[in-house]
Amino acid sequence: MLAFEEAWTRALMATGMASERDGEAALKALSGFNVESFRPASDRDGLPVPSLVARLREGLASGAAKAIHTGATSQDVIDTAMVLNGLAVLDRLDRRLQKLVSALIDLERRHGEAPLMARTRMQAALPATASLRLSAWQRLVQAQHDRMPALRDEIARVQIGGAIGLRDLPGANGDEVAKLVAYALGLKLAPVWHTDRSSMVSFGHWLTLLTGALGKIGQDVALMAQQGLDEIDLDGGGGSSAMPHKQNPILAETMIAIARYVAGLQGSLAQAMLHEQERSGAAWSLEWLTLPAMAEATGAALLRAETLVGSIRRIGTPG
Amino acid sequence: MLAFEEAWTRALMATGMASERDGEAALKALSGFNVESFRPASDRDGLPVPSLVARLREGLASGAAKAIHTGATSQDVIDTAMVLNGLAVLDRLDRRLQKLVSALIDLERRHGEAPLMARTRMQAALPATASLRLSAWQRLVQAQHDRMPALRDEIARVQIGGAIGLRDLPGANGDEVAKLVAYALGLKLAPVWHTDRSSMVSFGHWLTLLTGALGKIGQDVALMAQQGLDEIDLDGGGGSSAMPHKQNPILAETMIAIARYVAGLQGSLAQAMLHEQERSGAAWSLEWLTLPAMAEATGAALLRAETLVGSIRRIGTPG
Amino acid sequence: MLAFEEAWTRALMATGMASERDGEAALKALSGFNVESFRPASDRDGLPVPSLVARLREGLASGAAKAIHTGATSQDVIDTAMVLNGLAVLDRLDRRLQKLVSALIDLERRHGEAPLMARTRMQAALPATASLRLSAWQRLVQAQHDRMPALRDEIARVQIGGAIGLRDLPGANGDEVAKLVAYALGLKLAPVWHTDRSSMVSFGHWLTLLTGALGKIGQDVALMAQQGLDEIDLDGGGGSSAMPHKQNPILAETMIAIARYVAGLQGSLAQAMLHEQERSGAAWSLEWLTLPAMAEATGAALLRAETLVGSIRRIGTPG
Amino acid sequence: MLAFEEAWTRALMATGMASERDGEAALKALSGFNVESFRPASDRDGLPVPSLVARLREGLASGAAKAIHTGATSQDVIDTAMVLNGLAVLDRLDRRLQKLVSALIDLERRHGEAPLMARTRMQAALPATASLRLSAWQRLVQAQHDRMPALRDEIARVQIGGAIGLRDLPGANGDEVAKLVAYALGLKLAPVWHTDRSSMVSFGHWLTLLTGALGKIGQDVALMAQQGLDEIDLDGGGGSSAMPHKQNPILAETMIAIARYVAGLQGSLAQAMLHEQERSGAAWSLEWLTLPAMAEATGAALLRAETLVGSIRRIGTPG
Repeated sequence: MLAFEEAWTRALMATGMASERDGEAALKALSGFNVESFRPASDRDGLPVPSLVARLREGLASGAAKAIHTGATSQDVIDTAMVLNGLAVLDRLDRRLQKLVSALIDLERRHGEAPLMARTRMQAALPATASLRLSAWQRLVQAQHDRMPALRDEIARVQIGGAIGLRDLPGANGDEVAKLVAYALGLKLAPVWHTDRSSMVSFGHWLTLLTGALGKIGQDVALMAQQGLDEIDLDGGGGSSAMPHKQNPILAETMIAIARYVAGLQGSLAQAMLHEQERSGAAWSLEWLTLPAMAEATGAALLRAETLVGSIRRIGTPG
Repeated sequence: MLAFEEAWTRALMATGMASERDGEAALKALSGFNVESFRPASDRDGLPVPSLVARLREGLASGAAKAIHTGATSQDVIDTAMVLNGLAVLDRLDRRLQKLVSALIDLERRHGEAPLMARTRMQAALPATASLRLSAWQRLVQAQHDRMPALRDEIARVQIGGAIGLRDLPGANGDEVAKLVAYALGLKLAPVWHTDRSSMVSFGHWLTLLTGALGKIGQDVALMAQQGLDEIDLDGGGGSSAMPHKQNPILAETMIAIARYVAGLQGSLAQAMLHEQERSGAAWSLEWLTLPAMAEATGAALLRAETLVGSIRRIGTPG
Repeated sequence: MLAFEEAWTRALMATGMASERDGEAALKALSGFNVESFRPASDRDGLPVPSLVARLREGLASGAAKAIHTGATSQDVIDTAMVLNGLAVLDRLDRRLQKLVSALIDLERRHGEAPLMARTRMQAALPATASLRLSAWQRLVQAQHDRMPALRDEIARVQIGGAIGLRDLPGANGDEVAKLVAYALGLKLAPVWHTDRSSMVSFGHWLTLLTGALGKIGQDVALMAQQGLDEIDLDGGGGSSAMPHKQNPILAETMIAIARYVAGLQGSLAQAMLHEQERSGAAWSLEWLTLPAMAEATGAALLRAETLVGSIRRIGTPG
Repeated sequence: MLAFEEAWTRALMATGMASERDGEAALKALSGFNVESFRPASDRDGLPVPSLVARLREGLASGAAKAIHTGATSQDVIDTAMVLNGLAVLDRLDRRLQKLVSALIDLERRHGEAPLMARTRMQAALPATASLRLSAWQRLVQAQHDRMPALRDEIARVQIGGAIGLRDLPGANGDEVAKLVAYALGLKLAPVWHTDRSSMVSFGHWLTLLTGALGKIGQDVALMAQQGLDEIDLDGGGGSSAMPHKQNPILAETMIAIARYVAGLQGSLAQAMLHEQERSGAAWSLEWLTLPAMAEATGAALLRAETLVGSIRRIGTPG
């Protein structure tokens, strides 16, 4: 949010809406802002922006105060911040995904030739090798990695609409300001998307596909680890308080649970599309209740997947 | 399914896996197949393919019988048929979407300049014109139309994997057969996607976005039609059995309900990603319980949207 | 709906709101109504009631026409009809549940003493007998059967509110009419529940629990049927078009898929609680899109469960 | 969890499974346990119990160590702790509900006679008084309060099954131990419910109904607060960063968003019914991902409802 406000102030300066002096005072307030000590009045306002702006303007002369946020609206700040945070999340997930794909390639290299009974509809089908299943895992995860550039492209758009989405700034060219802010933040200029929540829902869709892919791997591992099939050996594995001889495939279980959890949340996030009139409070809040939790769960699932794949000692139908 | 089987038989002939004579006999059985009288044993087999293949082969000599389906598996037939049907559904939705976008453009042309109070968070914000809201509707619907080519590209892939997804045909080159079948059906050749259900889930995602967009329009109309706001006049409108003076915005209501229904189903469809081992029965069935219903509901929502937009006589804050 | 209208007319007669002669003419129109030939104008009105009432009144003198539906509203008719249909569905499910419980008791009697490895977290835990698992199935299904009386009690309420939920009839005692209609239909008198959708959502909850219980059995059977575990033998089982040697546990798979489908729909049905103002069209429609489909799927799952349990030839860890 | 373990140790003592001396040493370890400094190895074991038990037994002589947890399993501890926490949550929600019901009664007393246009299907229906809507709110909330005793009765059951659900303790009478533990914790004795998750899903169902009721109130308030309807005046209300003249009904919006969020999660929680074999890790974890979040959101919605109702200054159609 501060990054947005800083880019905004600079754009007001560049377009002559704020004087050099007022702008500099505003930028100083922004850079000196103490996030740690700030308690946003979200309970009062439904979102942190009004109290943030009030605090930023505190003690500033009128001109400098006006060089902050003027012409923008809360949704501009929060949506753009959501995008910036979303992209940062994608960077992290990207790195984890790359490591996971490498680990899966390595796994197939090491164990691909081991004999493994292919199973369809939970029934033994035909003898095959582990490569059949491992390459399917890899393709499935890789496919979600391959979707990342298109997803980034879809979400990396600045949100600048102003009070009612007209992008009309008093005394300035709204498009010019939007262009400058977008450039400063490394985002694309795009039409106002106050009421078009497609990109947020598409973000959730991708998280759903990715956790679904990991859930499939988790499900396969849990099935392979069954005594009677004995198709996989794992290092570690969860202890049991009642049966010390057991090694529960807890990473795999968690990956399954997260996949179902994230999929279900997508069904709720998608309802944010019903964003009424020029800006909705209720539909918008639904995004905050779901999307961050989905992203966090996806990160957790990826960490577990990486550890799980790294813990595989043996794969294949026992001789 | 018959289109797949025909393309398959022709590919077996082209690659020498079936003789000309056997292939022609098989093709004759295929073209003469009476769909109306066929009662698939889906209850017994969980899907219609085994009984379809048995019926197609009925009365054929051994060689001709083998020229049908040999080397394919039920999932190849059903997934490919799902794709072909999905593309046909998209063609229909495409036409309806084009008409809707035109109608929205026309609506803005006719009523765009009428004064309309902009409303944010359900509160009067600033005076504006109808154009603000109508152009947002149009952009939102257009955005989903713009996604169609990418969606088609994602789903228009032939499914050919054979029994366990190896695409290995006895006595033939699986990739060659797959290429021929794909070409005959106008689909892309792609790696086996028996266990990668991303494209089906992405199909649902698009339906969710589209019905969500229509739900937003329905929500706006229902709000505008309130006495006290009186921002819209509609021709027709549902009658009331108790209050003949009322005109209920029933098309708008249905569009809202469908949006929530389809969004919720997406949360279930997405669980089909947990497609265990080489092919899953349970996860796969979940697609059939959800995706066709979502597509049908989307079609219904689009018809209603078109009628609704066409029924708008007046828009804007009353003088 | 006709049952409601008939009870309504009789109540108008009994309370003196309709004369004997008008009432009899109305009842004659009701009993002579040809359902088959009636095409409700649901597309126009959003529900079938206005056109039904118009048709019923067709050709009647004014007094007789007024002896039909006067004082009731569409929601009274449809909600009460939903209740009557729901109770009829429960009767059917009840009989199927009783048969299933009997079959499960018999199953345990026949196979309960067979040795079966207990499995927790998908891992072999300790040796036990089949009785452990079979009695858990039975208790789980029985528990849902045990909930039926409370559910019936919750839903078996007449809906009578009139136009805006006041239950105020011009020239008659609304409570008296409601009492008579409730009695005639075998339902309880209760306060107006136009906007309290708890009972419909609780109906869905019970369907969710029941299909969940059947899904658990399906999941267990699918796991037991795995080669390597070989803990169950089933008669029949789905054929494979590619691998004639396979016997796919398709009933079990369908039970799993239905459980997930119904559970997901419950998440959408529950949103019908947001039933705005005195009566909502959009929230109400959502019930129709979900609850009947849930009930139908539950019936299908029960039929499959009964067949599946009846097809079990052997259970237990192989000697 | 510690309450369970303490009750367990006492039961082992009472049934002679642990000597007085060993039991006392165990109880001392339990009462001296430093929760703050304990870092459970949930990541390793999938749940905190094995590491908790190991830590509790640390430094104890063999007999005293055996007086802790012996014969119980992790699921016994966690499920029972979930129940105890659930009951404590219900206590809190109960108090908030009582206050809310009182506030609603008071609200109707103060504003019930104000004229208010009844609205059905988002359309003005007939003139009425505020009492119509306010009493519907009150009945709806009261109805969920009335369900609490049955819900408590359903969930207040001890979970004691041991390793595989047989409730068989080496050298002791499992039922006797279960009875003592249940009594000590104020819970009912009940059959093992390791795989019967109905009560947890019913807990979620109730939270769904309650948040749905609050969401309906929120929706009504947001609609009434619209300029043009002007049917309600609220103290406070959220500020806008762009339009200082606005008062956004943010409490109402949040209540709507929470209702949809909790409803959607119910669709995921319900999938925990597919609890395979004797105990499932994946299905069980799904409960933890959903139910606590649902309870927390419900608490937040209740607090908001109470504040919102208290902030109503005026209600009714303006003169």
